[in-house]
Amino acid sequence: MRVPPDLTVLLVLDLVGTFAFALNGALTAIRAVDVDLVGVLTLGIVTAVGGGIVRDVLLGALPPATFVDWRYLAVAAAGALIAFFFSRPLRRMRISIHVLDAAGLSLFAVTGAGKALELGVGPVQAVLLGALTGVGGGTIRDVLIRQVPDVLRTGLYAVPALVAAGLVVLAGRTGVDEVLGAPVALAAAGACFTIRMLGLRFHLNAPRPPGVPRRRAGQTR
Amino acid sequence: MRVPPDLTVLLVLDLVGTFAFALNGALTAIRAVDVDLVGVLTLGIVTAVGGGIVRDVLLGALPPATFVDWRYLAVAAAGALIAFFFSRPLRRMRISIHVLDAAGLSLFAVTGAGKALELGVGPVQAVLLGALTGVGGGTIRDVLIRQVPDVLRTGLYAVPALVAAGLVVLAGRTGVDEVLGAPVALAAAGACFTIRMLGLRFHLNAPRPPGVPRRRAGQTR
Amino acid sequence: MRVPPDLTVLLVLDLVGTFAFALNGALTAIRAVDVDLVGVLTLGIVTAVGGGIVRDVLLGALPPATFVDWRYLAVAAAGALIAFFFSRPLRRMRISIHVLDAAGLSLFAVTGAGKALELGVGPVQAVLLGALTGVGGGTIRDVLIRQVPDVLRTGLYAVPALVAAGLVVLAGRTGVDEVLGAPVALAAAGACFTIRMLGLRFHLNAPRPPGVPRRRAGQTR
Repeated sequence: MRVPPDLTVLLVLDLVGTFAFALNGALTAIRAVDVDLVGVLTLGIVTAVGGGIVRDVLLGALPPATFVDWRYLAVAAAGALIAFFFSRPLRRMRISIHVLDAAGLSLFAVTGAGKALELGVGPVQAVLLGALTGVGGGTIRDVLIRQVPDVLRTGLYAVPALVAAGLVVLAGRTGVDEVLGAPVALAAAGACFTIRMLGLRFHLNAPRPPGVPRRRAGQTR
Repeated sequence: MRVPPDLTVLLVLDLVGTFAFALNGALTAIRAVDVDLVGVLTLGIVTAVGGGIVRDVLLGALPPATFVDWRYLAVAAAGALIAFFFSRPLRRMRISIHVLDAAGLSLFAVTGAGKALELGVGPVQAVLLGALTGVGGGTIRDVLIRQVPDVLRTGLYAVPALVAAGLVVLAGRTGVDEVLGAPVALAAAGACFTIRMLGLRFHLNAPRPPGVPRRRAGQTR
Repeated sequence: MRVPPDLTVLLVLDLVGTFAFALNGALTAIRAVDVDLVGVLTLGIVTAVGGGIVRDVLLGALPPATFVDWRYLAVAAAGALIAFFFSRPLRRMRISIHVLDAAGLSLFAVTGAGKALELGVGPVQAVLLGALTGVGGGTIRDVLIRQVPDVLRTGLYAVPALVAAGLVVLAGRTGVDEVLGAPVALAAAGACFTIRMLGLRFHLNAPRPPGVPRRRAGQTR
């Protein structure tokens, strides 16, 4: 699949998001389960390309771009390998898994919504597909390593992705993105990243069901 | 995707099933994990539209109808929101999660088999796709909240769905549904619902492997 | 979907792999969770056809061959039923779950890579799709019964699948398979099977992340 010239911004953001998610997925894997090189590569790549694959399956855009275009696989594999060899110094440098995750989330929400608009689905669907592109890879990773997915339990994870995707769709529908492609995309990603990091910093949460007692995070039944 | 006029019965049943599953998925989520509004909405919508999406992916009918048609998403979101705001009174009213689940299972098995027949797959595949439409959403929900899916462990869950889908396919192959569309669909859904509720009430189970000792439900290894 | 005559070798290997994986998936289910006939059939069939379905979804070859062609479903159901009725004698005969699993892995890696080449994806993608066809069904099974998937934690599981798929792609690109179809396929499957069994016998593992302490297999967090 060839990316048309005007999609260059989307492509660059997509590859940066892919790298951030691959690093994040691989580091999460190393922390959470007893994995070898293959497991680290698998979880890094799945985290990085999983959301885009789910989006493309739902759009019927098969084979998925992240699978056909070798650049995604190469960048994802590179991120996972860096995490594999440098997991200890990376941890010591306090390069936060959360920051990488927020970066991937923001970039994928923007590019996912942009691609959905390109393929002509409705605005609500484009917003949902953008958010799904952002949260999809991490959700598949969490299912594979048997954690309750972040999207279900941690404060403000899907919300910033929905905001970013919504801004992209709004710009797309009003024609703003014709003249302001890259700035709009970066502003939307920046908004998502900021909300996500503020949410983590100040423990902001979406409202909880009224009258239901709180349990420990991740506790089941 | 426009639904042709003669599919009105399927559409209405599909939307009722969507509402029942969204309510069920959201209530299950509130009971099982510590979720906020986003988690409740996510699990409600996934339970409601997941089975239909899996069916449409397997049929190659992409983008999936439940995703493109805003009515499914709106009904699913409404069901999840009602569960969010009224989870306590709903529990006190003893509106059973099992009844809602059986309703969604029955309706989706019927509509799933009907859609599969429309798209021209063989009878065995149509029966399987009908059952898959019924059990798919709840299975994805259970995987996300780390429960062993009902279809694997509780008595007579897939069996009634297979019966309902089988009746629809039988009627479709013998031409009965040309004249009796709605009655056939309702009778098949009613049969599924009855078998499911009887199974729950009298703890009926499918046969177990001969000579294998019984364990507690959900126990692994 | 009709299989062209020159794909007979792929078809036979595919059906043998389907049978081995169905038997394996069903026996694993009986050992790991408290399942009835429906659960055993479901897990046997999912293990057997899951990898091929994921491959066909990613290739956009929908509906998936393993779903449309009744022979796959019949062979998978037969394998699961044999496991259901004879799980005790099979255990006493020490027909190893690992041997069946290695057989399915080897055959599916070969046939998956072959099918991907047929459909014209690039060589790297064909290798990955071959390996994915091999490990996909077992991974879905493990997610459903809440085990950490083998591909993430046990030594040399994806590696032999990648080797087999790589040999098939190499033969396909050099034209060797035009004259040597069946021998190439069998040699590639044999290489995978041998590496997998040696890996199990001698506890060979892929390298682990440097400086990360080892934990018990499957342990999380």
